[in-house]
Amino acid sequence: MVTKEELIRRKEKLQLKLREHGMDGALLVQHMSMFYLSGTMQCQYVYIPAEGDALGLVRRNMARAREEAGIALVQMGGFSGLPDTLAEHGFRLESLGLELDVLPAAIYLRLSQIFPNVKLMDCSIAAREIRQVKSPYELEQFKGAARQVDALHRQIPVLLYDGKKELALAAECEAILRTLGHQGSARMRGFNQEMYFGHLLSGREGAYSSFLDSPTGGAGVSSAAPQGAGHRSIRTGEPVTVDYGGIYNGYIIDQTRLYSLGSLPESLTRAFEAALAVQDSVVALLKPGITGGEIFSAAVSAANKAGLSEHFMGVADTQAKYVGHGVGLEFDEFPILAKGSPHILEENMVVAIEPKFTFPGLGVVGLENTWHITAAKAEKISITDDRHVIL
Amino acid sequence: MVTKEELIRRKEKLQLKLREHGMDGALLVQHMSMFYLSGTMQCQYVYIPAEGDALGLVRRNMARAREEAGIALVQMGGFSGLPDTLAEHGFRLESLGLELDVLPAAIYLRLSQIFPNVKLMDCSIAAREIRQVKSPYELEQFKGAARQVDALHRQIPVLLYDGKKELALAAECEAILRTLGHQGSARMRGFNQEMYFGHLLSGREGAYSSFLDSPTGGAGVSSAAPQGAGHRSIRTGEPVTVDYGGIYNGYIIDQTRLYSLGSLPESLTRAFEAALAVQDSVVALLKPGITGGEIFSAAVSAANKAGLSEHFMGVADTQAKYVGHGVGLEFDEFPILAKGSPHILEENMVVAIEPKFTFPGLGVVGLENTWHITAAKAEKISITDDRHVIL
Repeated sequence: MVTKEELIRRKEKLQLKLREHGMDGALLVQHMSMFYLSGTMQCQYVYIPAEGDALGLVRRNMARAREEAGIALVQMGGFSGLPDTLAEHGFRLESLGLELDVLPAAIYLRLSQIFPNVKLMDCSIAAREIRQVKSPYELEQFKGAARQVDALHRQIPVLLYDGKKELALAAECEAILRTLGHQGSARMRGFNQEMYFGHLLSGREGAYSSFLDSPTGGAGVSSAAPQGAGHRSIRTGEPVTVDYGGIYNGYIIDQTRLYSLGSLPESLTRAFEAALAVQDSVVALLKPGITGGEIFSAAVSAANKAGLSEHFMGVADTQAKYVGHGVGLEFDEFPILAKGSPHILEENMVVAIEPKFTFPGLGVVGLENTWHITAAKAEKISITDDRHVIL
Repeated sequence: MVTKEELIRRKEKLQLKLREHGMDGALLVQHMSMFYLSGTMQCQYVYIPAEGDALGLVRRNMARAREEAGIALVQMGGFSGLPDTLAEHGFRLESLGLELDVLPAAIYLRLSQIFPNVKLMDCSIAAREIRQVKSPYELEQFKGAARQVDALHRQIPVLLYDGKKELALAAECEAILRTLGHQGSARMRGFNQEMYFGHLLSGREGAYSSFLDSPTGGAGVSSAAPQGAGHRSIRTGEPVTVDYGGIYNGYIIDQTRLYSLGSLPESLTRAFEAALAVQDSVVALLKPGITGGEIFSAAVSAANKAGLSEHFMGVADTQAKYVGHGVGLEFDEFPILAKGSPHILEENMVVAIEPKFTFPGLGVVGLENTWHITAAKAEKISITDDRHVIL
């Protein structure tokens, strides 16, 4: 459980930004934004005034909201009663922040009608920025997620054999994680983005990219679910990448490890060594003050140095222009370590670094770890050995 | 694969509605809307003119879009190039339909700027309505999903024993479905709604409701994932409901079955019989011409007749006011068989009917089947026997 004191600190981070941007308050609408600020997923909206206490507006489920929430709650009546409810709680507003990156247009237009004299503003960036820097409580959750995914990796060697169906291996890995308390699907904030456990890929299909802006994709089970594990059989001499996150109390650790039955073609083995080198180059720079764009440039330089820039993070027009990203309650959190990203690293941010190399016809190799940025350096949260496991 | 002919029929259904509502075209944005109309999930937008051919605008991944799509495709440049791209393809528009129920407000506001002289209208209802009536191809997919979930149910008896962790049983069931080709998470269209495989619930926690507007909820693994299976152990004499859908080529069949180790308390056994009676009453009415509201009323009457109205579809303020819903590519499709629903049943709609009774402290009992509405009657797509399985 998140303490009330922590919820107050989170709220104060947002309030600072609201006052900075001249918003009288913000109506949070997205489920992870609301969970972050209230401690429960049972709210319909969470109102944060620029000064004062948070208020959770609950449609359902009030009983669970009362058990879990660390903020004041009120039963949400009809939608049109919102202005009165806020007024009754002493909130006067001339401007209101909304998460326009996720709020459906129909609700936005409805809010414009019921708040005719209120200036509606966009607080999405603020809502995402406050979640970048993690608390000691949150850092503990990542450790739980790291233990979970490490327990999975210790079992993979006994699950993998020549002829194993990719989907069967995926099913077994997912069952192991679930039994350890994984919630199932991981969350993404981006519109139309979705992620199941992650990408478990093998052989040539590991080089398939997808609709997702990611270095990997995979065939998936059908054109209706076109990413991740598919129907192929895993063969000796093929790369098998297990990019499955652990999730503990909602917090995601992102991690990828490489396996193969027997050795891999020389080009892939060299590329995996290059991925380790890219990771080293990047991690040496993961300190407060550097930008996401600078991190990405360093990664590209390291890939160039290995002569593998054309294979880095995908190929041709599907190359992903990032080498890492923040993780937390969602896979696509800030900061983004991408081409030109202005995000500046700060102490206690948590980022996943995922150097990967794609070889059409052969597959993908690489690794991924999640890192805690401290004042002095980056500490690895992932506890599984980085090495390519040859079975 | 969906044939081009079927994609044309789907498009024509939407075009009829666009002309009815005076829209020159619609820009579909939601991934399942786009998949339905293009055959691929690789489009960024799908444009459907009121008359003429569909056009898929692809950001990534063009290679896969070309393999899968049954409509014309064009590479999507920057967002602001959209009007020019449409003009180049001969589309002139004064009004444009958008799915305002899902389109993020930020994208809506951006579209308002880049289409300053175009009247932006809401086509969400039309986009959902065209998917209600299923094609022969789609009806075949539901059969695949029914076989998948039936294979799961044939294995549950050997997985269940006194002391079994609910989450471990869930993990095993999920692995069985995945190995059979299930895509993992099921999709929901509603904002902030989410569904993993479904609800596998046991004992008193089966009576927990959640944020989801559903007759069941469950504890879930944490307050960050507060629905579905949790950490409790299943005991003799407790109801175990397995409400896991099958998903085949994207199409969901919704199905619930009741299990127990040994017999259940008399009140629950009676309630399960009542659920069968409610199902019978409802199914007798599932014919073209009846409204969703009439179906719901009939279900409530049948529950009243059994003296169980206070337990029907949840209790107190968390009672769900529906008895069924359309299924297809998403769990929350039209028609909705809810209190006052004006949706009129038509031939070849597919609906899930889920009479359930909740007993706080004891759990939930009931069943769910998915039905194909033909001209004369409702045909059961689910193939698993309805009975309460006592082990």
